Amino acid sequence: MTSPIHPVPHHPGDRDALLARYRQVRAASRALCAPLETEDYVVQGAPFASPPRWHLAHTTWFFEQLVLVPYAKAYREVHPAYAYLFNSYYETVGTFFPRAQRGLLSRPTVAEVLAYREAVDAAVDALIAAAPDTQWPEVCARLEIGTHHEQQHQELLLTDLKYNFSLNPLHPEYRPAGEHARGGEPASLRWLREPGGIREIGWDRAAFAFDNERPRHRVFLEDYALASRPVTNGEYLEFIADGGYRAAPLWLSDGWATVRREGWDAPLYWQQRDGAWHYFTLHGLQPVDPQAPVTHVSYYEADAYARWAGRRLPTEAEWETAASGAPMTGNFVESSYLHPHAARGDGAGYAQLYGDVWEWTQSAYSPYPGFAPLQGALGEYNGKFMASQFVLRGGSCATPADHIRPTYRNFFYPAERWQFTGIRLAED
Amino acid sequence: MTSPIHPVPHHPGDRDALLARYRQVRAASRALCAPLETEDYVVQGAPFASPPRWHLAHTTWFFEQLVLVPYAKAYREVHPAYAYLFNSYYETVGTFFPRAQRGLLSRPTVAEVLAYREAVDAAVDALIAAAPDTQWPEVCARLEIGTHHEQQHQELLLTDLKYNFSLNPLHPEYRPAGEHARGGEPASLRWLREPGGIREIGWDRAAFAFDNERPRHRVFLEDYALASRPVTNGEYLEFIADGGYRAAPLWLSDGWATVRREGWDAPLYWQQRDGAWHYFTLHGLQPVDPQAPVTHVSYYEADAYARWAGRRLPTEAEWETAASGAPMTGNFVESSYLHPHAARGDGAGYAQLYGDVWEWTQSAYSPYPGFAPLQGALGEYNGKFMASQFVLRGGSCATPADHIRPTYRNFFYPAERWQFTGIRLAED
Amino acid sequence: MTSPIHPVPHHPGDRDALLARYRQVRAASRALCAPLETEDYVVQGAPFASPPRWHLAHTTWFFEQLVLVPYAKAYREVHPAYAYLFNSYYETVGTFFPRAQRGLLSRPTVAEVLAYREAVDAAVDALIAAAPDTQWPEVCARLEIGTHHEQQHQELLLTDLKYNFSLNPLHPEYRPAGEHARGGEPASLRWLREPGGIREIGWDRAAFAFDNERPRHRVFLEDYALASRPVTNGEYLEFIADGGYRAAPLWLSDGWATVRREGWDAPLYWQQRDGAWHYFTLHGLQPVDPQAPVTHVSYYEADAYARWAGRRLPTEAEWETAASGAPMTGNFVESSYLHPHAARGDGAGYAQLYGDVWEWTQSAYSPYPGFAPLQGALGEYNGKFMASQFVLRGGSCATPADHIRPTYRNFFYPAERWQFTGIRLAED
Amino acid sequence: MTSPIHPVPHHPGDRDALLARYRQVRAASRALCAPLETEDYVVQGAPFASPPRWHLAHTTWFFEQLVLVPYAKAYREVHPAYAYLFNSYYETVGTFFPRAQRGLLSRPTVAEVLAYREAVDAAVDALIAAAPDTQWPEVCARLEIGTHHEQQHQELLLTDLKYNFSLNPLHPEYRPAGEHARGGEPASLRWLREPGGIREIGWDRAAFAFDNERPRHRVFLEDYALASRPVTNGEYLEFIADGGYRAAPLWLSDGWATVRREGWDAPLYWQQRDGAWHYFTLHGLQPVDPQAPVTHVSYYEADAYARWAGRRLPTEAEWETAASGAPMTGNFVESSYLHPHAARGDGAGYAQLYGDVWEWTQSAYSPYPGFAPLQGALGEYNGKFMASQFVLRGGSCATPADHIRPTYRNFFYPAERWQFTGIRLAED
Repeated sequence: MTSPIHPVPHHPGDRDALLARYRQVRAASRALCAPLETEDYVVQGAPFASPPRWHLAHTTWFFEQLVLVPYAKAYREVHPAYAYLFNSYYETVGTFFPRAQRGLLSRPTVAEVLAYREAVDAAVDALIAAAPDTQWPEVCARLEIGTHHEQQHQELLLTDLKYNFSLNPLHPEYRPAGEHARGGEPASLRWLREPGGIREIGWDRAAFAFDNERPRHRVFLEDYALASRPVTNGEYLEFIADGGYRAAPLWLSDGWATVRREGWDAPLYWQQRDGAWHYFTLHGLQPVDPQAPVTHVSYYEADAYARWAGRRLPTEAEWETAASGAPMTGNFVESSYLHPHAARGDGAGYAQLYGDVWEWTQSAYSPYPGFAPLQGALGEYNGKFMASQFVLRGGSCATPADHIRPTYRNFFYPAERWQFTGIRLAED
Repeated sequence: MTSPIHPVPHHPGDRDALLARYRQVRAASRALCAPLETEDYVVQGAPFASPPRWHLAHTTWFFEQLVLVPYAKAYREVHPAYAYLFNSYYETVGTFFPRAQRGLLSRPTVAEVLAYREAVDAAVDALIAAAPDTQWPEVCARLEIGTHHEQQHQELLLTDLKYNFSLNPLHPEYRPAGEHARGGEPASLRWLREPGGIREIGWDRAAFAFDNERPRHRVFLEDYALASRPVTNGEYLEFIADGGYRAAPLWLSDGWATVRREGWDAPLYWQQRDGAWHYFTLHGLQPVDPQAPVTHVSYYEADAYARWAGRRLPTEAEWETAASGAPMTGNFVESSYLHPHAARGDGAGYAQLYGDVWEWTQSAYSPYPGFAPLQGALGEYNGKFMASQFVLRGGSCATPADHIRPTYRNFFYPAERWQFTGIRLAED
Repeated sequence: MTSPIHPVPHHPGDRDALLARYRQVRAASRALCAPLETEDYVVQGAPFASPPRWHLAHTTWFFEQLVLVPYAKAYREVHPAYAYLFNSYYETVGTFFPRAQRGLLSRPTVAEVLAYREAVDAAVDALIAAAPDTQWPEVCARLEIGTHHEQQHQELLLTDLKYNFSLNPLHPEYRPAGEHARGGEPASLRWLREPGGIREIGWDRAAFAFDNERPRHRVFLEDYALASRPVTNGEYLEFIADGGYRAAPLWLSDGWATVRREGWDAPLYWQQRDGAWHYFTLHGLQPVDPQAPVTHVSYYEADAYARWAGRRLPTEAEWETAASGAPMTGNFVESSYLHPHAARGDGAGYAQLYGDVWEWTQSAYSPYPGFAPLQGALGEYNGKFMASQFVLRGGSCATPADHIRPTYRNFFYPAERWQFTGIRLAED
Repeated sequence: MTSPIHPVPHHPGDRDALLARYRQVRAASRALCAPLETEDYVVQGAPFASPPRWHLAHTTWFFEQLVLVPYAKAYREVHPAYAYLFNSYYETVGTFFPRAQRGLLSRPTVAEVLAYREAVDAAVDALIAAAPDTQWPEVCARLEIGTHHEQQHQELLLTDLKYNFSLNPLHPEYRPAGEHARGGEPASLRWLREPGGIREIGWDRAAFAFDNERPRHRVFLEDYALASRPVTNGEYLEFIADGGYRAAPLWLSDGWATVRREGWDAPLYWQQRDGAWHYFTLHGLQPVDPQAPVTHVSYYEADAYARWAGRRLPTEAEWETAASGAPMTGNFVESSYLHPHAARGDGAGYAQLYGDVWEWTQSAYSPYPGFAPLQGALGEYNGKFMASQFVLRGGSCATPADHIRPTYRNFFYPAERWQFTGIRLAED
């Protein structure tokens, strides 16, 4: 558990910078919870939608068990049961409380979890100051991955909360819609040609990336084209109106079985009200905006839509190659809008590659050639999920802006819809 | 929904007495919640174990929908969604939020539910004062059943809370054990002979009873004998030690299937710790007291124990006949002990017929000859559960003392164990 | 396993009579299979609907394991695996192949099962001749119960086969409808008054009856009335037309949950075809006969129908008291019609108490006062099912005529519909 | 449904050759059934393990519905229900009987299914002779795919039958083990280096291949090495002995969940008997041969074994590149051994690339760049399964020798084990 993390961190000496980042990330988690009632912290709407309190505790557990326990000799665990209660799935760290039962626990209370956070934060502060130089590279690497881990849970905290709230007939509002630019014409759909050949994808820089983004390697691509922006709700409504959810030949076999078993007839959170489609958002039930990107669609729906449209989904190599040169700007969690915007204007390049919606690719989540997971418990972070999931790219309106990269590989099962997932089309 | 309730109430003119009882019962529900954290109000540990907040709201819904809405013309519902959210199972009142999902709602908050209670209480207060004499008998009858309904939910609130807490590895304590007499020798087991013949059971007095206790009617009993006290943990431990949970011939077929499917090897809440049996109680994990009545056993376990002991369970007619002359004293919720006591001393008669543990009878829960359910929504209260359940008698340590009667028929499915259920043996 | 069966058999000396009965019952099982294709012997349409071949083998297993193995010293088991494969649920005899998987076995083949029958028959023949007089009473008692056991399985073989065939879109016909009288006017519905008081029910004669029919004992009945004939399809169609399957207040709570979960809108085997109700019968799909008794209804449906009709179901004591004086004639399996007939004419008494359809009573299946199950394995025959089931009376069109008695207690779970179950109403 | 199949067949004029192949393939299906009892044709041991009779009928349905109905004008369907009963999953052809219920049908009988085959065969014979030249290319293409389809079902018939038999405690034998060479030393494990670079995979010849093998396209490979032979039972036993099935870090997350849920501790069909591992084979229960390739392992087990061995599974491109030059010889269904052989001798190249066991690759089953499914119903053949499955290569001991190709892509879900699946390791 104390074996060195590979690769080495990129700024082994800069303790002040890491401390600042640590504090900023930890504060951001707390800030996301500001609008919550105590009761909201407890509920788990489905096995996949953990209570907010659990996210606050588990991200703290990560620092406690993977940094403080191995490296801060004087540290004493806040509670002997937390190592068990707040482990998510790290088999090499120990047993864990069943995931599906996180919503069955009313204790520790929110106040106790916040006290847990404070105790761990104080100990991390002290460790950053006091770790001997010989240990600092390892401590630094683990703290850094911990901050990225916590940023992932910030996004999950929001999407889980949205799911939990969606089950409530009262349609609770997380908070009022933030400011968002509405000016300009809706962006039209253009096709951007990308030449084929040998390309390189994956991460090779010193700065942080997850192990699954490495190593950088060569792939061969045929010529292809990518859509300039994601599919909009208006376009998706045409698919619905054309009977897309009732036309078996458009669907993968597993997808069609899911459509029938679940009774899907629209994206998650959509409902008819007075004859018009609405969707549940983090600021309550809203009319569907036809110009905004469609979101909360499964891989099956993205794939069926693409087939209906006579196109296909891109591979992750195609996406990354196209996106590598694009600016990493967009509608991220910091905009506080927490819902995808309509793309505006008609620039020459791509719109909304980053932020707004995670874009399903047709690539199954697999190891890159030469992939080596981190050693010890951190090796369970990414590698063990490399079966039956699909890669998504680009981040969403719930992703922190400094958390995303062109090489970032997110992954979910093809039936999952509770993330801010969307569709960008490709063609040969 | 406004049809008269049969039978007529016993004190049609006494508005003050009813107001006093209403206030006392309502206050008792609040008092039971005093030890809770806000988080505790939210959790539903199983479909059958509703959140405390739901009990507070549903008992209020009962008065709102079945008393105020039909009889208090000026009353305005506190929230339009509550009629749906807090209906338990009254099909004739309208649709209801699914029972198994009560723990998925964080809103309305506890504070909002308490405000709901206060608004309804104020309206009931006003209605008691202002109802015209012509309506008063109906209003009175419905308010009275509402108070008994709320007392049932007080017991459920405690047993549901116990179940919810039992899932938590932290073993939360509801509150410290109250005072309870420990003096005297443990009561020995004696057999009291009861002569057979034609007997009468059921309720025929003016005072309140549920419709399922009526009409009083004749039954024919053979001679029988009843045990002077319930089976103790010590006696039940002998059954366990003798391989009771592994001996198929002792069990009903459905019971044996349950034992194997669920892996039962002891009553609910029992666990081995350092080689000794403990049980989870409302004051935390405790060593098993061999002299206290065994509790949290299913009908299947009660029946198997009786077969192992060469005895049988009593019928409800046998129980009621024997209990009719006994004093209705015992360990009820008011003792605050919230766990069965050891029976003490060797009086001439029965011990612990009332309070401590509900006693399984071998009688399936069926209508009495001539049974007529109440009309309208209240007809759903009892009658529609008359299949596949068994009758329990006598109340428990979580029952309010003024809620129980010799004719009171409680009923649960034979596999259920989360009530304070116990065993009293009979023989021919 | 060799302990004496109580009570002693009624004809301890008559070996010839028993041999004749044994041969007659065994031949009847074979005769019922005459119309089957080899493939029909293999299928198990649901966990409760065993393959015909299994019935042939299990009834043989009963004689082998409960008679030959303990009493015929020289007997050698036909195959060492059959004791396991063809045990149904006798825990005291040994482990058994899982019930739900009986349809997964293609071996032993039908031919091998028939050879098994022949080997056991020969050994039983020899034992009847050779058993020493000291053992004969026990051997005789076990052989006798074995023949009644096989008759029960003859009925199950037909109802299971009907269920299996019903799943086949080809609507296979078991055999053409036999002769049945169609003359006379349909019987009208009359109410026959029965006086209350102390009555006796249960079996006390020397002739065979199951242990659950004993002991004969006193019960107290109020005055009641019984319908002169069962509810017809025509009457039941009015219930359907009146929205009976959509009216929650008519149903027991468990029943309503079943209706919604299973999507019930008519009895089992009913389907609309060209706008008219048909039902699947053992002679194929047929138009519903409005004058014939409704059949293949669950207890829930029988109870809901009775509530809709403003009546109730009888108790088993009411049924038995009324039926004790009636002639035991009716439409049994020997008529080969294998479907209930319309009652004809207007005699003074009851029609169709015996045969045609099993009549649901409101009595839960419970032990009679003083009930003592048989000892050893045969004690598992009846007693261990005394929870959550309801008693049916009178036999059906698939029951052998010499198998039924006024005291005969059949029992099924309230949701089960694949037997020939029907409804006779009662009122106070 | 009559749209042309792309690509065009390779021998548009050779009617005699096609007729010969048609007859040969059809006869082979019948020959595989020769050892079966009638009862064996009926059983479906799991939703995925169809009855043999169903395979005989479905392959016939394919020719009837996809060739005769559109092209043989005078053809009359043998039975109007067969189009529904024997459709597997072709949504565009019509509805289909539920897959999981194929074992619930005893009719049509085996004799009727054989008559169905004969009627269709006669009509196909006639169509081959009589189809006008203008239609012949389409007819020919569909007949050809039909023969390959039937060969796939021949393999499934054997693996399904093996599964069905494995559930039977009698351990039925399909037929005695055929001849198989046992001479020579067991092959040792060598590593063969393969240079990286741009390679081409996929089919581009005129001869038949499935649509999912096209188009031939370029991929970029790093240098890699492949094992000279598959992993043996002896090697796999070391993994078991080393606690492989209890070591969470070796497993994919989904795999570990499967191991625990299913209680896996060895490959499918393995069981301990008298302290030694045996496996169920098509010639009964046999001791495990340590030199034969391990088979009936899931992807999860293959992947965990590779991780334990410090290696990895190959990609399908790596496998195909290595296998393209190898001779397509091996232990196929024609050898009648129906179980993998031990590899013998130490040749310079690869052993057992073809036949013996299907080899799991780490490649998710996805469309090749530029993949276009066939039009109409045949487009459902392969494309709609491109999610959550993994590619297997090389054929098995149950594959017809003339059915396999270097480019052949088989695919199964990662938890499936009832095919003859095995492991060949790779390394960077």
